[in-house]
Amino acid sequence: MKTTEYTTNVLKYIPFLYVIWSDDLVSPSEVSIFKKGLDKDTLSQDEKRSLTSWIDANNPSDEIMVTWKKMIDEAEVKLVESDPYPLTYFSMRMALNSQSVKNVDESLKFIEINLGIQPNHYHHLFNVKIEAVSSSSFYSAKEIDILFKGTYAKEVDRFRKKISSDTFHWNIIRDKDIFRTKVLAQVENLAKEGYGAMAYGPEYGGIGNMPAYASVFENLMYVDGSLTIKFGVQFGLFGGSIYNLGTKKHHDSYLTKAGNATLLGCFAMTETRHGSNVRGVKTTATYVKETDSIVIDTPGKDDNKEYIGNALHATMATVFAQLIVDGTNHGVHAILVPVRDKKGALMPGVRIEDNGYKLGLNGVDNGKIWFSNVAVPRENLLNKFGDINENGVYTSPIENPNKRFFTMLGTLVGGRICVAKGALSGAKKALAIAVKYALRRRQFNSSEKLQEDLIMDYPTHQLRLIKPIAKTYVYHFALAKLIEDYSVSNENERREIETQAAALKAGITWFSNQTIQECREACGGKGYLLENKIANIKGDVDIFTTFEGDNTVLIQLAAKGLLTDFKTEFNSDSFMDVLKYVGAQLSDRLTTFNPIFTNKTDKEHLFDPEFHKEALEYRRRRLTFSAASRIQKYIKKGMPSYQAFLKVQTHLVALGGAYAEELCYLGFNNFADTIEDEKNRFLFKKIGALFALSEIQENASWYLERGYISGNKSKAIRKRVERLCTELRPHVNTLVDGYGIPEHCIDTPITE
Amino acid sequence: MKTTEYTTNVLKYIPFLYVIWSDDLVSPSEVSIFKKGLDKDTLSQDEKRSLTSWIDANNPSDEIMVTWKKMIDEAEVKLVESDPYPLTYFSMRMALNSQSVKNVDESLKFIEINLGIQPNHYHHLFNVKIEAVSSSSFYSAKEIDILFKGTYAKEVDRFRKKISSDTFHWNIIRDKDIFRTKVLAQVENLAKEGYGAMAYGPEYGGIGNMPAYASVFENLMYVDGSLTIKFGVQFGLFGGSIYNLGTKKHHDSYLTKAGNATLLGCFAMTETRHGSNVRGVKTTATYVKETDSIVIDTPGKDDNKEYIGNALHATMATVFAQLIVDGTNHGVHAILVPVRDKKGALMPGVRIEDNGYKLGLNGVDNGKIWFSNVAVPRENLLNKFGDINENGVYTSPIENPNKRFFTMLGTLVGGRICVAKGALSGAKKALAIAVKYALRRRQFNSSEKLQEDLIMDYPTHQLRLIKPIAKTYVYHFALAKLIEDYSVSNENERREIETQAAALKAGITWFSNQTIQECREACGGKGYLLENKIANIKGDVDIFTTFEGDNTVLIQLAAKGLLTDFKTEFNSDSFMDVLKYVGAQLSDRLTTFNPIFTNKTDKEHLFDPEFHKEALEYRRRRLTFSAASRIQKYIKKGMPSYQAFLKVQTHLVALGGAYAEELCYLGFNNFADTIEDEKNRFLFKKIGALFALSEIQENASWYLERGYISGNKSKAIRKRVERLCTELRPHVNTLVDGYGIPEHCIDTPITE
Repeated sequence: MKTTEYTTNVLKYIPFLYVIWSDDLVSPSEVSIFKKGLDKDTLSQDEKRSLTSWIDANNPSDEIMVTWKKMIDEAEVKLVESDPYPLTYFSMRMALNSQSVKNVDESLKFIEINLGIQPNHYHHLFNVKIEAVSSSSFYSAKEIDILFKGTYAKEVDRFRKKISSDTFHWNIIRDKDIFRTKVLAQVENLAKEGYGAMAYGPEYGGIGNMPAYASVFENLMYVDGSLTIKFGVQFGLFGGSIYNLGTKKHHDSYLTKAGNATLLGCFAMTETRHGSNVRGVKTTATYVKETDSIVIDTPGKDDNKEYIGNALHATMATVFAQLIVDGTNHGVHAILVPVRDKKGALMPGVRIEDNGYKLGLNGVDNGKIWFSNVAVPRENLLNKFGDINENGVYTSPIENPNKRFFTMLGTLVGGRICVAKGALSGAKKALAIAVKYALRRRQFNSSEKLQEDLIMDYPTHQLRLIKPIAKTYVYHFALAKLIEDYSVSNENERREIETQAAALKAGITWFSNQTIQECREACGGKGYLLENKIANIKGDVDIFTTFEGDNTVLIQLAAKGLLTDFKTEFNSDSFMDVLKYVGAQLSDRLTTFNPIFTNKTDKEHLFDPEFHKEALEYRRRRLTFSAASRIQKYIKKGMPSYQAFLKVQTHLVALGGAYAEELCYLGFNNFADTIEDEKNRFLFKKIGALFALSEIQENASWYLERGYISGNKSKAIRKRVERLCTELRPHVNTLVDGYGIPEHCIDTPITE
Repeated sequence: MKTTEYTTNVLKYIPFLYVIWSDDLVSPSEVSIFKKGLDKDTLSQDEKRSLTSWIDANNPSDEIMVTWKKMIDEAEVKLVESDPYPLTYFSMRMALNSQSVKNVDESLKFIEINLGIQPNHYHHLFNVKIEAVSSSSFYSAKEIDILFKGTYAKEVDRFRKKISSDTFHWNIIRDKDIFRTKVLAQVENLAKEGYGAMAYGPEYGGIGNMPAYASVFENLMYVDGSLTIKFGVQFGLFGGSIYNLGTKKHHDSYLTKAGNATLLGCFAMTETRHGSNVRGVKTTATYVKETDSIVIDTPGKDDNKEYIGNALHATMATVFAQLIVDGTNHGVHAILVPVRDKKGALMPGVRIEDNGYKLGLNGVDNGKIWFSNVAVPRENLLNKFGDINENGVYTSPIENPNKRFFTMLGTLVGGRICVAKGALSGAKKALAIAVKYALRRRQFNSSEKLQEDLIMDYPTHQLRLIKPIAKTYVYHFALAKLIEDYSVSNENERREIETQAAALKAGITWFSNQTIQECREACGGKGYLLENKIANIKGDVDIFTTFEGDNTVLIQLAAKGLLTDFKTEFNSDSFMDVLKYVGAQLSDRLTTFNPIFTNKTDKEHLFDPEFHKEALEYRRRRLTFSAASRIQKYIKKGMPSYQAFLKVQTHLVALGGAYAEELCYLGFNNFADTIEDEKNRFLFKKIGALFALSEIQENASWYLERGYISGNKSKAIRKRVERLCTELRPHVNTLVDGYGIPEHCIDTPITE
């Protein structure tokens, strides 16, 4: 069979047919698109019959395929990836036997667009000259960045300019004291321009905008982790404790100075023996009526405050301690305690030790603090939720001590969201560097080629980098929504937002660590050198899984929130509270699923947000239902409730995770629906699909166990995930540029 | 219903019945054990009828369970975990209403032993006083250590004593120059006592024992990663290259000095632009007949040697370069090149730059090396596999240049096994520290208890630490076998051993990194402090996934080895070689499976090595078969072979991983069978079961997709994995002590 046996009209479809049949993923919809393309063409009966038979065949014979391949290779046409419709142009060149193409063939164009095939799907199939492009400019990074910045474009742009100045250029500093001095100066520099106080009211130098503060925080992470955390400790934790737990007298006395960093402070909550279980802290704050003062004391040698950021620079500490008034313990309260005088000398009764070197964040001065009967005035009690009046009597607007405690802890939620945002920035930065390296680095080639292949063109590399890129997109918009919701929430909505923050903080910080590790490995030995910045991010972000709430503890709290439909106090370790509500979950009848979906494997279905939503919702509801019923079963047998919860601990961890993923997907998908530009909306929908399918794939065994998906569907999902990564490959540089990371932050020897 | 309604004979079974029915895992075998126990007892007809009805019931009613619970709680007996048979004693105390137990009830004892229930399964079920033990001394760490040391107990013991001296005590050093000086002194110290030369023959100061050297290497890792790697570079890579690639003249001139570290050297293979693709290195070694010398040259500015360990201390380098003789390139060969004179000054034409700070291993001096027409005598060519004779003619005992190159590379295999061993030691050390912390650290409690719970008693914590402990056991014995096989292997067996080494190096270094991360998080913020040693291990072991072969590349090489049944040159990138053999895999008919296993979920079956072996083998064979058939399909359609392999790249990665796991399990299980002591053999079998079930669980979606396991079986496996972790919980301290890590290596502030 020779080329000349085909008419020009038939010939021009041959590359398309070859591409379609080379792939594992020929679906009925691909067949129908192809046929629609044929309908648009003016073909003879014979031509149409041949073409239709080839597309209708279950699979053309290997002989025919080899013949087609030969035709294409021997036609000596060039594949130009930068052509507007590369496969159409290529096919027309072949059919017309001419390099120049004038009028674009509308049928071919229709098929090419609607199949969504891109040069990187097929350029390796042909032994032809390729004019390659390593990345496409089809999408605009600038437009993506505008979507990312959302409402706070002005603030973010101004801030990015700010952090691009020399003061914020990164360098390797091994000595912790030198590093800390640098970071302190950077924090003071930012404070001067009002960045620290952004979340406080205008009367204290701020703009009263927590989400804008969070946007600044996440951009700061591109510069350096230590700077970000020191910034967060000073303005978010220390300043935030005054703002959220104190009253006007405290605001007036301290908030402006905290915000402009002329009063450096720390947040002394964690103790050596009490981290996750804050409620059990041993430090006491005893009210002494005679002197009208509160005496802070560390009872045992291991009851010191530990890991306290800013401990070596601070002159004041917000100390969390058991408040004892007239012999009664009213639970944990926060008290402002001066720890150093103006000259920097420790106050009498205060001992502070350096925590020493850490895996990362060595620019943050963490320390241990002991108090030996340190007296402060009664006014130093941050008294929004609990006070001692002038008669020495304890009063509180919240009668239930449980509720009071958790209301105070609730003020940490903003910090938790910021931690998730910071970790995500670390992942974005690492991905940007790894992608830029992968678009420069070449290794291995086929014997026919002179040049080695870009490592970005390896399927394993696409999977390891593009899947997490899709996740960063989803998480970004989920967190943006959460911080907005948080900033306008009322008391009734708080429990649910706290649950969401716990789930997302855990899920996203774990994701970020895995991703940064993947990026380090994707850059090989080069990723291990500090000069290329990924190693540093890795060391810094590592601890994000632990601080502001250990992930394993948080994810269980989130699960408990779900079990009680957000009705119990968040953070509560009172199991009876939970049990009250568990029964309600058992009446949930939406734990069955649509059996029609079980075997559906076509592209449209796998791309359909309705399928994604149903699958993610089913998992969350089913896990809620089964956890509730297991707990109830144990209780009925007389098992103590604390133990019943232990029995289902791993189940709760799965539930918390499922909740986080569903929440993120919904937030992202809703956002994607609001994008006006069709092209960008389609891109975001595709990213959403990659995220959802990846989640289903990662939990495929669970879905398979329950018959929610069939074995074939599970395989189809895995293939579709790989395919989506390939489809996004040409846009990968645009996708990471879309993060809007200031250039100097990702400038490294390997991305030059 | 009151206690008095039951006879003493019945009463003594009540705690057993309660424990059995509280659990999710009542299996037919548990029922039959209970009945056998009853048969041993002398019971009245009535008593037997009641007891049989309770155990035969599908589930006793909740009311009965609550009554039983109440009886137990109100009996006011004490549960003493250190009793020989705690539940038997507890039950007898209750039935006899007396704290003192004289003769042990044989029926109860029989049931307790055979159900394998331990206090930590049930102590939380009762509201009774508990005399707890945090770890059991049922097994002996010393006996386990003897099994671990195997043949090399004498060498290992002597070496552990050696590294317990002050010279090898670890401290935090931030400055790389100070750190490197310390490490160099340590290496020289070890060399003096012959540890470096162990793998070389006695005529060069060694004992000709590679496995013993590897045992020393893995123990050295407990001290410090930098020391281990510097040691490996000097003796394994530099000395090893002389030993394996050179001939007697090189051995006589250099090997003794390399072994006693009076000649420091490096192994200059990797280049900035060529890491994984070593064959493509650009450095040239051109033979110049006129001067009878070989001229080493770095052609482009980025063609320098990179990341070369010992580069800043070495006086000689084994340089891998394209050997050009009389205008013909004979491929990559190794040449000894002096890089510094005796005073430490660089030789003319040699430029060396420090690679700077890394994420870890900062005690190793990695550098970049450029050569500018550096001439060395012809004799400096390491000429075992390729030589230039006195007439300036190239000769080689291996005609095929491909085979020659891969034979040379094959000498790296010993190093690869050592890298896996080193990474595994890192994981063991981190696990030992994390376990000891978890046996001290308490957090949270139920309202009834004064003391908070040990975090080791949380199911999530058991899963995160005990599962990886089981894996360290399996991997240890798999590597011990591999190094033995390697040391006695002949040329024909080499391909298979190279494949195994590639698969295990990748699998075990990835595992080690994940495990160390888990340990860091399991120790919370304390794990992040350098003083507690885990952070350091994490930074050091990180790069083990990249050096001595990037894991993603290695795992694909392993898969290609499988596809060709180890017949092709290992490391070969010639796809045609592979294709020759692919067809053979397609004739494998053992890709069906035993349908009887699909639904079997009982304890005995899940514990049965026959099931484990079949499952792991099925996965490896099935993946081999499907990869081969996909490749063949693509080729038949005319796709270039290089591209066909790219198409199945993620498939190959899965195949390589499946191969590694099967191999490890088989090696471990065979070893376990040889343990004479029954108690220890049972322990090892249990560990093997935990490993195998964990592997099946981690790939459950794959097994479910193919119908190899049913949904119920998948759930049963997950539960069994959790249960096995709980069963091993009392022995966890013994298990990590069994590693035999010298005490000063795991002494940290959190394990005190």
